[in-house]
Amino acid sequence: MTTSAIDNLVALLSRMPGVGQRSARRMALHLIRQREGLMLPLADALRNTAESIHTCSQCGNLDTSDPCHICTDHRRDPHTLCVVEDLADLWAMERGHVYRGYYHVLGGTLSAIDGRSPASLNIDRLVQRAANDSIQEVIIATNATVEGQTTAHYITERLHTTNVRVSRLAHGIPMGGELDYLDEGTLGAALNARLPF
Amino acid sequence: MTTSAIDNLVALLSRMPGVGQRSARRMALHLIRQREGLMLPLADALRNTAESIHTCSQCGNLDTSDPCHICTDHRRDPHTLCVVEDLADLWAMERGHVYRGYYHVLGGTLSAIDGRSPASLNIDRLVQRAANDSIQEVIIATNATVEGQTTAHYITERLHTTNVRVSRLAHGIPMGGELDYLDEGTLGAALNARLPF
Repeated sequence: MTTSAIDNLVALLSRMPGVGQRSARRMALHLIRQREGLMLPLADALRNTAESIHTCSQCGNLDTSDPCHICTDHRRDPHTLCVVEDLADLWAMERGHVYRGYYHVLGGTLSAIDGRSPASLNIDRLVQRAANDSIQEVIIATNATVEGQTTAHYITERLHTTNVRVSRLAHGIPMGGELDYLDEGTLGAALNARLPF
Repeated sequence: MTTSAIDNLVALLSRMPGVGQRSARRMALHLIRQREGLMLPLADALRNTAESIHTCSQCGNLDTSDPCHICTDHRRDPHTLCVVEDLADLWAMERGHVYRGYYHVLGGTLSAIDGRSPASLNIDRLVQRAANDSIQEVIIATNATVEGQTTAHYITERLHTTNVRVSRLAHGIPMGGELDYLDEGTLGAALNARLPF
């Protein structure tokens, strides 16, 4: 139907999340039409990012510098460490502008089914950081999924050897949430964690 | 929230059709996680395609060679020319595997509102091709929109000077279409163009 160069481009685009064959074709067309304005800049951005990105040896974040821009930001609170599953969760926390401490990126969750053991996660380094640094509190911000909670429990146990306070994000009704649409698990958690008004 | 390299990548990704800020971030994360397998190959594919793609001097198609792979395919029927608005429509026709002649890509439609005049379209070349070559029939396959139909009428008039037969794609009920869901325009066209059973 088309030549191999475009075919190849469409095939690669369709491997991105949420992009099917049809949207990949639309993207390829859009890119071809904006060769100078979008296609070449995107090619450069992909190559530059791919070549310049490193895993931060401190926290496991992915960044163009090592240590990453968060670990080298000295305006942050040096006493708290927020443990997240992966980069996407770190980005979500940063977008919220509500946390000003440092992070620790696990690189996934424990999962017996998918064969992810503690050794495959960035946990040893977390225990080291919690023990040596000036850290007073570790906030566990894994997802509220079975794997996330399992990982949270495992980390809490591992951190028993250190003197840090371990906390986790609260469960409850999301802002703007309507009780009618919430699942029982969330409602139960919100009821159990009720606070004086 | 992130470093400028990733920010820049997300900004460029979000300029693709159907990609918002959120999907662009998901894509960037996905790409970063598959640096060798997807990110670098995609960077190369974009650059290669951008650098190798040309507008076919025969038909206006975009391809890595000029004349394009369709114009140089001598197994095609040399007597028919299918006029399409743009590359996407050519791809759609080719996907259908129902047409085996050559193409002519206009590069858009006439539009008084958007200020697209006949001179901005690849029409002169079409008249030339229809007059000089062995073309016997020109099939106008512009979209069934106001602009598409206006363009079709204009082209038909321009082709009066040549001896070619000018036809257009039939309007009617799409395959699998239910009458209940069709607009009156389509139903009317289908009724007027009814055929003996």
